[in-house]
Amino acid sequence: MVDVGAKAITAREAVAEGRIMTRPDVVRLVSSGQAPKGDVLAVARVAAVVAAKRTSEWIPLAHPINLAGVEVEVRAEENAFHVVASVKTVGQTGVEMEALTAVSAALLTLYDMLKAQDRSMTITGIRLLSKSGGRSGQFVRKGGHTDAHRDTDE
Amino acid sequence: MVDVGAKAITAREAVAEGRIMTRPDVVRLVSSGQAPKGDVLAVARVAAVVAAKRTSEWIPLAHPINLAGVEVEVRAEENAFHVVASVKTVGQTGVEMEALTAVSAALLTLYDMLKAQDRSMTITGIRLLSKSGGRSGQFVRKGGHTDAHRDTDE
Amino acid sequence: MVDVGAKAITAREAVAEGRIMTRPDVVRLVSSGQAPKGDVLAVARVAAVVAAKRTSEWIPLAHPINLAGVEVEVRAEENAFHVVASVKTVGQTGVEMEALTAVSAALLTLYDMLKAQDRSMTITGIRLLSKSGGRSGQFVRKGGHTDAHRDTDE
Amino acid sequence: MVDVGAKAITAREAVAEGRIMTRPDVVRLVSSGQAPKGDVLAVARVAAVVAAKRTSEWIPLAHPINLAGVEVEVRAEENAFHVVASVKTVGQTGVEMEALTAVSAALLTLYDMLKAQDRSMTITGIRLLSKSGGRSGQFVRKGGHTDAHRDTDE
Amino acid sequence: MVDVGAKAITAREAVAEGRIMTRPDVVRLVSSGQAPKGDVLAVARVAAVVAAKRTSEWIPLAHPINLAGVEVEVRAEENAFHVVASVKTVGQTGVEMEALTAVSAALLTLYDMLKAQDRSMTITGIRLLSKSGGRSGQFVRKGGHTDAHRDTDE
Amino acid sequence: MVDVGAKAITAREAVAEGRIMTRPDVVRLVSSGQAPKGDVLAVARVAAVVAAKRTSEWIPLAHPINLAGVEVEVRAEENAFHVVASVKTVGQTGVEMEALTAVSAALLTLYDMLKAQDRSMTITGIRLLSKSGGRSGQFVRKGGHTDAHRDTDE
Repeated sequence: MVDVGAKAITAREAVAEGRIMTRPDVVRLVSSGQAPKGDVLAVARVAAVVAAKRTSEWIPLAHPINLAGVEVEVRAEENAFHVVASVKTVGQTGVEMEALTAVSAALLTLYDMLKAQDRSMTITGIRLLSKSGGRSGQFVRKGGHTDAHRDTDE
Repeated sequence: MVDVGAKAITAREAVAEGRIMTRPDVVRLVSSGQAPKGDVLAVARVAAVVAAKRTSEWIPLAHPINLAGVEVEVRAEENAFHVVASVKTVGQTGVEMEALTAVSAALLTLYDMLKAQDRSMTITGIRLLSKSGGRSGQFVRKGGHTDAHRDTDE
Repeated sequence: MVDVGAKAITAREAVAEGRIMTRPDVVRLVSSGQAPKGDVLAVARVAAVVAAKRTSEWIPLAHPINLAGVEVEVRAEENAFHVVASVKTVGQTGVEMEALTAVSAALLTLYDMLKAQDRSMTITGIRLLSKSGGRSGQFVRKGGHTDAHRDTDE
Repeated sequence: MVDVGAKAITAREAVAEGRIMTRPDVVRLVSSGQAPKGDVLAVARVAAVVAAKRTSEWIPLAHPINLAGVEVEVRAEENAFHVVASVKTVGQTGVEMEALTAVSAALLTLYDMLKAQDRSMTITGIRLLSKSGGRSGQFVRKGGHTDAHRDTDE
Repeated sequence: MVDVGAKAITAREAVAEGRIMTRPDVVRLVSSGQAPKGDVLAVARVAAVVAAKRTSEWIPLAHPINLAGVEVEVRAEENAFHVVASVKTVGQTGVEMEALTAVSAALLTLYDMLKAQDRSMTITGIRLLSKSGGRSGQFVRKGGHTDAHRDTDE
Repeated sequence: MVDVGAKAITAREAVAEGRIMTRPDVVRLVSSGQAPKGDVLAVARVAAVVAAKRTSEWIPLAHPINLAGVEVEVRAEENAFHVVASVKTVGQTGVEMEALTAVSAALLTLYDMLKAQDRSMTITGIRLLSKSGGRSGQFVRKGGHTDAHRDTDE
C-alpha cells in the first residue's frame, strides 16, 4: 500500500455512477411500493453508505479513510435503476474508490432484492464522474453526467 | 431477511462475470508485469475471494453463508479485463450474490490498482451466467458465457 | 466459548423487544416523514438485520451462527419507538443473543438519527420475549408481549 | 451520511450509562468469582471497547471515528450491573454514539454470560450522561449521573 | 479457495500453541496483578476467541467456519507466557488455522499490553500440536506438548 | 484503551519481522511456482496489508489507526520464509502493533497455503525491528535486522 503520509490534508470529493438494467415491469413494481422485500431503494441507499465506509476492506490496497460525508441517490429509469454516489473526506488520499464502492454495493443490493423477479439483470456503467482535491487536481469525465445514458456505446 | 430455514440443504453453485474497460496500453502494462503496484491480477483474485466470503456484510438482506469453494479467473482482453467467479456451497440458500460480489470486488480492485494509468475505466456487464441447486432450479443465461463479448450491446 | 458441538441441530427461534423513549413531537416528526435524516424506521430495520447477522462480533463469547431469517418491526408509540425482532436459525445453538442484538442496534440507530432533536432519549426494556428449540426448551416471558408497556415498573 | 467535513477538529468526549437488571443471587455469583463462564466483568469491559471502536459498523449513518480513548466501568449493584462508558476523540464529529454503543455491547455481553442463570434479565436506562466538544456545546443530563437510579421513572 | 463441498461433515478439533518471551520481571508484574493496563491474561484470552471466530477474515483463502467451541489457556512461565488454544467444529474443513490464529492473537495482545514494559519481546514457537477429524486423519506433533520448551531446537 | 488524545500528531513508522520454518523442499516448491494453491507469496503479502489495516480488530485495546503506507517483503530462505513488514502513519499513536500484525498474518497465510505439504511448520521470531516517531523516541533492536537468523538462540 503506497505511502501517502507526505501528501497534503485537503478536502476531497468524488462522484461515481452506475446502473442496473432490468425489465420495465420490475421498475414499476418498485416504484409502486409493491416489491415483496419492502423499501428496495431505501435499503440500497443504506447499503451504499455502509459499504463506502468500509471500502478498505473490499479493496486490498485501498487506504482506510474516515469519510466526512456520503450521499446516495437511486433513481428509477424506464428499464434501469441509476445510482449516483458522492463521497467527501478531509484527508491525505482521494475517495474515488469509496464512491465506486458505494455505487457497486447499491447495485448489488438492488439485484439481491429483485432477483426473484428478474435473474437477468445486468450491472453496467460503473465509473467515476468527477473528483476534486489532492495533487492530481480536478477530474471531470468528458460527456459527463448528462451523457450517462450512452455509456455502453463507448 | 426472508426465512430460509425450511429450504433443503443442497449443493449449490453460481457463476458470474463482469468486465472493466480500459485502454489497450494499460492492459499491456499489466500483461507485461510492469504495473507499478505489482501483481495486479493476483491481488484482484484475492480480493474476489475475500469479498465473496463476506457478501452478507455488503448486502444488507443477504443470508450469511459458509462458502465451500470460490474460483476466480481474471483474463486480459484487448481493451478490458474479464472476471469470472464461480462459487459453491452446501446449504439452504443460493450463492449468486456471492458470485456477483466476487466479480464486483475484483473489478473494483483492478480499478484501484490501475487508476493512476486510466481514470476513465468503466465497469460493465456484471451479471449471472448460471446457477444450480435449490428450488428455483437451473438458471443458464441465454447466449451465456460464449456471448459475453457482446454484453454491452444489449 | 463453550463447546456446542454435541448439541442437536434443530430449528430455533427467539423474539426480543426494546424501546427508546422520546418526546411526542419527535415521534410525530418521524411519523410524518419530515425527519431530516430521511426514512428513520427503514434505516433502523436494516441496522437490526445487519447487526443480528454479526452478533458474534459484538459479543465476545457468542457462537457464530448463520441466521435463516430475521424480522424486525419498528412501531411508533406516543412517546417511544418500540422494536420487536424475531430471529430464526437451524443449528446447534440458540439465537436469543441475535434477537437482543438486533433490537439494540435498531434502538441505537433510532437514537443516532434523532439525536439532533432530542439528546435525552433513553433506551429501555431490552429483553427476551420468547425462545424455542434446543435443550432448554420453550421460554416465554411471564406477562409477555402484551405487558410490554409496563416494563419500566419492574 | 451528513457532511461533517467543515466542522472544527476539536477534542470531544461523551459519557453514557446503562443497566441490566437481574436477581441478587446472580449478582452475588459474579461478585464471588463463581460464574461458570469465568471473569464476566472483564469480558464485558473488553466487549465495550471493541464495539466502541467499530460503532460505525453497527449504526448505518454513523461516521467512522478513530477513538483516542475508551474507559469502561462495570459495577455490581444489588440486583443489577451498572455500566458507564467514557469515550474520547479528537475529530470533526462527536462520540456519543460510541459511548452508547460501548454500554450496549457490555450489557449484551453480561446477558450472554449470565443467561444460563437468568433468562429474564432486562437491559434498561441506556442514555447519554454528558457530552463536550463540538458546535452543539456541552450537554449534561439533568439529574445526571447521581440520579441514575431513578431513570425508569421518567 | 479450494472446494470442500464434497467432504464429510465430521467433528473436528485442533490444538496449537505459542510463546512470547520477555523478562522475568515483566512476567512477575502480570502475575502480581500490577500491570498498568489491567487483567492482561483475561484480555488475551478474549482476543484469542474473538480472532478464532473470524479466522477467514485474516487468512485470505481460509474457509469460513462456524466454530462450536474455543478454549484458551494463557500460563506464565519464568520468562515467557505460553498460550494453548483448542478449537472445535462440526463441519467440512479442519480448524487448525483457527487454533493457530487464536494463539497468534493472544500473543499479539500480550505484546500490546506489555510493550511499555518491554519492547524486545519475541513471539516464538507458534505451531500445531494436534488435529483430529477429517480425511487426513489424526495429526500429533512428535515430542508434542510436553516437549514444547525445546521447539527452537528442531 | 488509554487516552492518546493529547499526544502530538507526528509521522510514525515501525518495522517488524518473523519467520516460518519448513522443509527445504517446500521452499523450493514455492520458489519454482509449483505450489498447488498458486502464488503463495503474493497472497501472503496481500494478507499482511489487509490485516495491518484492521489491527484494532485483532487486538482489543489497540487504537484504530488510518495507515498511510504498508510494505511487506516475503523472502525464501533455505528452510524458512522470512517476512518483514514496514508500516507508516501520521497520527497520535505508534504502529508497532500494525507491523507485528502484518507479519503474523503473512506467516499464518503461508502456513495455510502450505499445510498440505508440511503440518510441522513453526512460526518463530516475530518481533519489532525498529520504531520511530512519538514520545518514546527511536527504538532499534540490538543486533537488529542482520542478526535475525540468530533469534531462536535467545
